[in-house]
Amino acid sequence: MKGLVFLGKGEYAVEERPIPKIALPGDAVVKMSKTTICGTDLHIIRGEITNVALGRILGHEGVGIITSVGAAVKSFKPGDKVIVTGIIPCGTCVFCKRGTYGHCTTGGWMIGNTLDGTHGEYVRVPYADTGLNLVPDGVDEVSGVMIADVLPSALECGVLSGKVQPGSTVAIVGAGPVGLGVVLAAHLYSPMKIIVIDTDENRLNLATQVGATHIVVSGPNTVKTVMGITSGAGVDTAVEAVGSPAAFDMCQQIVGVGGTIANIGIHGAKIDLDLARLWNKNITITTRLVDTVTIPMLIKLVEAGKIDARPLVTHTYKFSEIAQAYSAFNAAAENKVLKVIIEFD
Amino acid sequence: MKGLVFLGKGEYAVEERPIPKIALPGDAVVKMSKTTICGTDLHIIRGEITNVALGRILGHEGVGIITSVGAAVKSFKPGDKVIVTGIIPCGTCVFCKRGTYGHCTTGGWMIGNTLDGTHGEYVRVPYADTGLNLVPDGVDEVSGVMIADVLPSALECGVLSGKVQPGSTVAIVGAGPVGLGVVLAAHLYSPMKIIVIDTDENRLNLATQVGATHIVVSGPNTVKTVMGITSGAGVDTAVEAVGSPAAFDMCQQIVGVGGTIANIGIHGAKIDLDLARLWNKNITITTRLVDTVTIPMLIKLVEAGKIDARPLVTHTYKFSEIAQAYSAFNAAAENKVLKVIIEFD
Repeated sequence: MKGLVFLGKGEYAVEERPIPKIALPGDAVVKMSKTTICGTDLHIIRGEITNVALGRILGHEGVGIITSVGAAVKSFKPGDKVIVTGIIPCGTCVFCKRGTYGHCTTGGWMIGNTLDGTHGEYVRVPYADTGLNLVPDGVDEVSGVMIADVLPSALECGVLSGKVQPGSTVAIVGAGPVGLGVVLAAHLYSPMKIIVIDTDENRLNLATQVGATHIVVSGPNTVKTVMGITSGAGVDTAVEAVGSPAAFDMCQQIVGVGGTIANIGIHGAKIDLDLARLWNKNITITTRLVDTVTIPMLIKLVEAGKIDARPLVTHTYKFSEIAQAYSAFNAAAENKVLKVIIEFD
Repeated sequence: MKGLVFLGKGEYAVEERPIPKIALPGDAVVKMSKTTICGTDLHIIRGEITNVALGRILGHEGVGIITSVGAAVKSFKPGDKVIVTGIIPCGTCVFCKRGTYGHCTTGGWMIGNTLDGTHGEYVRVPYADTGLNLVPDGVDEVSGVMIADVLPSALECGVLSGKVQPGSTVAIVGAGPVGLGVVLAAHLYSPMKIIVIDTDENRLNLATQVGATHIVVSGPNTVKTVMGITSGAGVDTAVEAVGSPAAFDMCQQIVGVGGTIANIGIHGAKIDLDLARLWNKNITITTRLVDTVTIPMLIKLVEAGKIDARPLVTHTYKFSEIAQAYSAFNAAAENKVLKVIIEFD
């Protein structure tokens, strides 16, 4: 089979690899149908996530068909269509019992990180019973791909951690796929205003299409504009969906008294936290790795037509074109790329 | 009457002032029986809280007897013994309706800040119906003083914001009055371990007396020691009860995955937030100004013998000695002073 492998900072290529086999009784092997590229894959290639081994097949999102299962797998059988996500929970450790699968002591983020990922034609998935989710007939494959990571990241790290509530005001700094996923997921909790802030007008237009009530082109007057939209109060929830000191700083400038800053972005540096101003403002700041515990809920919501992330997909590639897809996604804004879908043969 | 007034950075004195009168229909005037000095009063004198007018009588904690009430006051009458606290809630604005009295749009922290405080023989209290609480027979005056600010600050900003839970582990950085108040208030929620960290062994001994399960003399091995106490996991709740970059940094080094840093300290500078390490650790950071909404609960708990903050009182002064009390409290650790009580004639 073929897979797109990480070869060191700035280096990747499609290489030939053996099809993975069942290694442990809880494993499943999945033949991929569709996958996508995540900003996190780019972080790896840029050398910003340093634990990934050279030669690793990247990718941690997708939909595929099970081709074989280990002797201990009870919930799945060959032929089942499943969602493959990066986070693999053992289901039994202290973190899994709390629902924080991302910190599973023997699993966690494995696929496309410590194990080969979904940018290969086949992928081995440990802890298949707890880590995989069946794709029902009412969920199309593209929506299934969006349920693997974009939507649970947006819902868990943005909307739930950010305590979005009916009637509240939400600002999202960064209109990438996860930021726009937050727009979609926020609507589940009926906020009054959803403000999206970005430098890219193309992405802001898409934000409006998926339900933003206000869009703000980032610039020197952004804080003033957001204060105007919120009658001077600041927002109840500010979501950091970039992963930069500037985006975090914007959040701490626009959050109102009693509000929450929900950080989703991956950060590589320390941040200036303005406690001299915020110490008495009843602010909450949250960080979180996606746990994927909301995938079953999201499957039902997609099936019922309550959430639809397909408008975030701007480009579709064949798996044979995956290297081009990486190039396009690496300069996403200038190529007007938001989320790509990669189809296997 | 006499009052201790703020006269500019580093300057204070006892001065003669007129006894305050009812100015608004919701006011009460209270003749003080007992008060105390807060670290916040020192922050004002040191010029670190810059909005306080020259000539202001300081102090925002105490117990006294009502001498007169305005025409609109329904819940109190002259002769009632009441707790006077700094936070005065109108009870009707958007913040008061949420229970965040500290951010009341026309009240909030007034006593000893924007209005004369409890370091005068009489104090005028606006919004008396919502701002005062009756001291029942079963609550002694010293306990009443501790209910004014120390205990609600510890409970609200430390224990409740820090989400202390049965079986959890709590570390408190800073064994001042509020830090030790957190030890007392944490016990209401039955945590498994309460670790107190400070440089002062005298204060740490007191921490043990009021219920700390572990004390750690702050030094180069503090993080390692706390990790040892928590079997390498870090703490569920880290309370910042100092107000310094070093104390906040200690909290972010010892908090475990999924844990909470509850900031109580007053900060005058930006803080390095280590998001490069914490972005995926499911951390919550909270800030809060005490709202005093838990005062009614605390009165009942003290009356029932469920919490007793009197061991935090190390020194008692006459009101005529208040300037000496300030001097002693200003070098609290070296004078082995924790909380002082000041008795009026």
